[in-house]
Amino acid sequence: MRPVLKRNYEGQVCSIAGALELIGERWTLLIVRDLFLGVRRFDDLQGDLGIARNVLRDRLNRLVDEGIVRKRRYQERPERFEYVLTEKGVDLWPVLHSMLTWGDRYAAPENGPATLVEHRGCGGRIDDRRICESCGTAVGPHDVKARPGPGARPGRHPLLRAAA
Amino acid sequence: MRPVLKRNYEGQVCSIAGALELIGERWTLLIVRDLFLGVRRFDDLQGDLGIARNVLRDRLNRLVDEGIVRKRRYQERPERFEYVLTEKGVDLWPVLHSMLTWGDRYAAPENGPATLVEHRGCGGRIDDRRICESCGTAVGPHDVKARPGPGARPGRHPLLRAAA
Repeated sequence: MRPVLKRNYEGQVCSIAGALELIGERWTLLIVRDLFLGVRRFDDLQGDLGIARNVLRDRLNRLVDEGIVRKRRYQERPERFEYVLTEKGVDLWPVLHSMLTWGDRYAAPENGPATLVEHRGCGGRIDDRRICESCGTAVGPHDVKARPGPGARPGRHPLLRAAA
Repeated sequence: MRPVLKRNYEGQVCSIAGALELIGERWTLLIVRDLFLGVRRFDDLQGDLGIARNVLRDRLNRLVDEGIVRKRRYQERPERFEYVLTEKGVDLWPVLHSMLTWGDRYAAPENGPATLVEHRGCGGRIDDRRICESCGTAVGPHDVKARPGPGARPGRHPLLRAAA
């Protein structure tokens, strides 16, 4: 088994510390967010996040090493790859959703949330326990869709960018 | 209104990015975790986290500035303070709980989770939607208690440390 505790968290025997060790880095959760939103190619991720290519490459490699993301070939000649979440990665959805909920309350753009999450089935809003406020279904990551909210800015939101 | 977007996240109009800006720093969520567990005094936090005092002071000041934590005087002569979560801080519980759940599955100590969270009312386990598996109650942060789990190590777990 790989050692869970190392580096700065040495001595922290805790699953939260363990989770932070894997995903606590500033950019990592934003990469995972973009993968959830369907931004999967290196150049698209780089364009959306606006981080240095070597930093992005490093973070993606770390996510692949940790089994949170895998590379998938989408073109043969020349070979091109995109990045997709593994099950371990998809299981981060509750973490992202709880951060989104808290962020919507305390750290949203002035105009309101940039992203709204709704139940694919009925269009209802998803509450902070990931239950559809409209039909009461306990939803998973495949049951929802994200759409640009009032705080989204054209050209700045991965969903609007994809639609452009 | 304070600018939500700055520094490294410039251009990221997103509540997740906004949340990460406030709580994304490596140690910050572990400080919040300790405050939830009842570790509230500077020296106790420093002892439990094992980080440099100036780093801890810096992170605590940031949390106070952001309204996530407030200082409370617990002794007059000499004046001594402890740190407690504000409502904004307590509202981070879903974020911590979702990280705990994911970490228990993917990044727990070898012996199992170091911390178990149970419903204060009936002792039931809390599922990943923060619903009691035993009685079905949707629980809030004040309805649960944490106790050391199989992966806890004496002297290394804030709850065991407090009991010593």
